[in-house]
Amino acid sequence: MVLSLEDPAVRSYIVYSAVLGLKMLAVATLTSLTRGKRKAFANPEDAKAFQGKVTVDAEVERVRRAHLNDLENIPAFWLLGALYLTTSPAAAWATLLFRAFAAGRILHTIVYAVVPIPQPARALAYFVPYLINAYMGVQVVLHYATAL
Amino acid sequence: MVLSLEDPAVRSYIVYSAVLGLKMLAVATLTSLTRGKRKAFANPEDAKAFQGKVTVDAEVERVRRAHLNDLENIPAFWLLGALYLTTSPAAAWATLLFRAFAAGRILHTIVYAVVPIPQPARALAYFVPYLINAYMGVQVVLHYATAL
Amino acid sequence: MVLSLEDPAVRSYIVYSAVLGLKMLAVATLTSLTRGKRKAFANPEDAKAFQGKVTVDAEVERVRRAHLNDLENIPAFWLLGALYLTTSPAAAWATLLFRAFAAGRILHTIVYAVVPIPQPARALAYFVPYLINAYMGVQVVLHYATAL
Repeated sequence: MVLSLEDPAVRSYIVYSAVLGLKMLAVATLTSLTRGKRKAFANPEDAKAFQGKVTVDAEVERVRRAHLNDLENIPAFWLLGALYLTTSPAAAWATLLFRAFAAGRILHTIVYAVVPIPQPARALAYFVPYLINAYMGVQVVLHYATAL
Repeated sequence: MVLSLEDPAVRSYIVYSAVLGLKMLAVATLTSLTRGKRKAFANPEDAKAFQGKVTVDAEVERVRRAHLNDLENIPAFWLLGALYLTTSPAAAWATLLFRAFAAGRILHTIVYAVVPIPQPARALAYFVPYLINAYMGVQVVLHYATAL
Repeated sequence: MVLSLEDPAVRSYIVYSAVLGLKMLAVATLTSLTRGKRKAFANPEDAKAFQGKVTVDAEVERVRRAHLNDLENIPAFWLLGALYLTTSPAAAWATLLFRAFAAGRILHTIVYAVVPIPQPARALAYFVPYLINAYMGVQVVLHYATAL
């Protein structure tokens, strides 16, 4: 069995994985912009170049936490989503999972780093993608359990 | 040459990669549980929702360091393990490496974040997977060195 | 369409991805060495084992920031580079991008963590790989846009 680039589930995985990659890159730039706006830098050479200070700023730290949360969840999706495709899921179901994952993570960034909103907004935007990752991981382990 | 899902080395890579993905997800939840138990949160809106404080807690930080250490090692395994498969390693040897990597990382989480144990317990659980990653990386670079 | 391991663009992706994996492993070891040199550790059991202190050290933090910056950019390259290959780019062009990305990230580590150099050295070494990631991500999304 070979994954085909004509398979709609594969195409869905590819496009949403790339969208999430671009979203993560955007959060990196949001950190730089927030550092510039708050004049709060991590390195003396940056503070000097932009006439700011080496300091810890609450707004910068919030964006950094959103970014770290991406690192904890999005690469896991790239891996688990790709492996999940090899278990021959129904295309419509896989596409739904990939779309919900991407929507959840984009929402997570917005309610965490762009427009902070009271809980449980962020918790919901976190748990839907989290559960999708966990579900795909369990499906993969069950499918290949004889290889353990 | 095409990687086949019937190849036992490929199946071993898939199942241990998914196991490590699930393990990382578990550490994320361990962080949340530890924050709840210690009432120590990173965001004002979380502290408010769970009647805790925005503070740095030693126990929470320990779990977070274990998590960050995962991010530094497990995605590298996902990549290097997959590329290593393309160098046609002996299946039994590749399977041994994948299994040892997964065992090492699971042990690392346990001795770091669940039941802290004096060194060199964590150092050993760190270095075995680290050396496996390094070995696979070197094998891949040697195999494809003409493409540099 | 199937990606072939004989395709020069695929071979270039594989070798530079593995080089970057090894580079990231090297930064992890640089952190350990810097902790040892500065006697500055993150865990009481490490401070005890190496007769140091649990403390935050400027030199250690600099290496850690370089490492975190790797985590924010290199796994995204692994994913976006692989997906970009599926859009059938010209091999010479794809190879140039992969090579420039790897060179930029290696330089970034050097000017950040090994020999700190005034800005804009690090900014340049950061933006070239960043823009390559963004370019590949946009190409992938455009190519598979009908799957959104």
